[in-house]
Amino acid sequence: MTILVTGAGGFIGRALVSSLLTDNDGPAITCVDVVPQPDDLVHPRVVWVRGGLDDGGTLDQASRAGPDCVYHLASVPGALAEADPALGRRVNLDASLDLFDRLAASPGRARVVYASSIAVYGAMSREPVGVATPTQPLITYGTHKRMVELALADHTRRGNLSGIALRLPGIVARPPSASGFGSAFMSDLIHALVSGRRYVCPVGPDATAWWLSVATVIENLRHAARLDVTGVVQVPALHHSVGEIIAAMTEVTDVKPEIAFEPDERIEGVFGNFPPLDIKRELALGFRHDVTTADLIRKAVAGSGVI
Amino acid sequence: MTILVTGAGGFIGRALVSSLLTDNDGPAITCVDVVPQPDDLVHPRVVWVRGGLDDGGTLDQASRAGPDCVYHLASVPGALAEADPALGRRVNLDASLDLFDRLAASPGRARVVYASSIAVYGAMSREPVGVATPTQPLITYGTHKRMVELALADHTRRGNLSGIALRLPGIVARPPSASGFGSAFMSDLIHALVSGRRYVCPVGPDATAWWLSVATVIENLRHAARLDVTGVVQVPALHHSVGEIIAAMTEVTDVKPEIAFEPDERIEGVFGNFPPLDIKRELALGFRHDVTTADLIRKAVAGSGVI
Repeated sequence: MTILVTGAGGFIGRALVSSLLTDNDGPAITCVDVVPQPDDLVHPRVVWVRGGLDDGGTLDQASRAGPDCVYHLASVPGALAEADPALGRRVNLDASLDLFDRLAASPGRARVVYASSIAVYGAMSREPVGVATPTQPLITYGTHKRMVELALADHTRRGNLSGIALRLPGIVARPPSASGFGSAFMSDLIHALVSGRRYVCPVGPDATAWWLSVATVIENLRHAARLDVTGVVQVPALHHSVGEIIAAMTEVTDVKPEIAFEPDERIEGVFGNFPPLDIKRELALGFRHDVTTADLIRKAVAGSGVI
Repeated sequence: MTILVTGAGGFIGRALVSSLLTDNDGPAITCVDVVPQPDDLVHPRVVWVRGGLDDGGTLDQASRAGPDCVYHLASVPGALAEADPALGRRVNLDASLDLFDRLAASPGRARVVYASSIAVYGAMSREPVGVATPTQPLITYGTHKRMVELALADHTRRGNLSGIALRLPGIVARPPSASGFGSAFMSDLIHALVSGRRYVCPVGPDATAWWLSVATVIENLRHAARLDVTGVVQVPALHHSVGEIIAAMTEVTDVKPEIAFEPDERIEGVFGNFPPLDIKRELALGFRHDVTTADLIRKAVAGSGVI
């Protein structure tokens, strides 16, 4: 048994590998990322392959061990893919397909957990949204995520891989200003509330989003790896307005926030206008959100390294 | 004004270019195909580029003229893509994306009419099917068609192209046994009925499909090029069982058919189990089917070159 984690040096990747390393007698983990190996992930079970997935040699090294379980997290963030769609295609689309082709050509039938995104939905009505909702991506990042979901489903149908694509909601709290995601306001807001620094929020207090802590997304990723289910899954999340998050935050911490609202129509339209989620099937399959708003915020703050 | 036609030497491509050449003072037409220029398409307005779209040099030649209107028809057929998914990816997916990227980088905003397929739907319920139906492709060919639809929509959203994807139903009558499509029985049946030769049909008489003549698909493709609508369109078609086609055929011709039925579960499951189409929007947009079964058959026979 060996595990492969792409994007292992990213926000979610680091938390996932740390979690995998807490298992006693766990398997070897091949980690791939463009960044150097972080000190906290130096471990006898970890092999760090430094390189981009859009490099054939890196891909060869990543897939050489014939991993039984793959967490494919690596991607160029949404704002960067929007600014440089050729880069987005190379990393988020082509490299993902190349990885799957290599894994499919290996003996065995690897379990592949793919980090897809709610960006696949794009234009949404006020109706609840779930995996049965037709996808109409509004950003290149979401277009590529949907294309890769389709390719993974085809490899699964062909019997070469056992693929599950998890549509991740906004994960909080990412490191400040590092993400390049249009949804960065979700994490920036929490950092501002913790630090007490003034924050100009690019969406209004009534803007709604889907919120999930990094700790809970890791639980969902690991649950997906163990589950005997293929296809697309909407990861559960709490459906809250920005105002509700601020109110709950001020209950959890003692900091008095100073938040100004200067809504940006484009950001609010794409990232701040989310209807309820339809996640009945996923909850029955054992996927989880953070249960209460206070729990979400405690975990978001704990996972962000800010306090 | 210049036109580009990929797959110009194929069954639909030849009929399309012939139709374009009937226009008085029509524009120059760059044709791309792996096959040599057919004699009937030798014309002062035609430039024939011989090569595969998976070849960068061919792509450069194809897009060099900066076409204002592109009919992207080239593809590896479904059965071949299923047997050789790497070839399918190279031609049906990667080459299509490369073509769009080149066109998007050209000045202007080319109108792109993409020949998608009903293979994008895959698993279907008994409910009417249309562009609002979620896609679950059951073959690699259909997976790639859906992926390319998404990429074209993204280029359109970005403002670089004006793309419209037409989901083509079964087109009759293709040349005998030349297609490599699992839906080949639709055309083979009509050839058998015309020739009077015995035919062993791989689906039963109650198998239902969506039927469209090549003449009418050309009208729809040309209509799409002129229309100021982007996104995905389901091309109208008649919804008939194999038994209904045979009954209508024997009314139109005097030939007594000898048809044996030996249903193949896989072919019938994927290609012979189609519910009604939901095409209200498309009919309102001016897209057309063959109106009557007799008209469908007359046009299918006329367009097939068999009589």
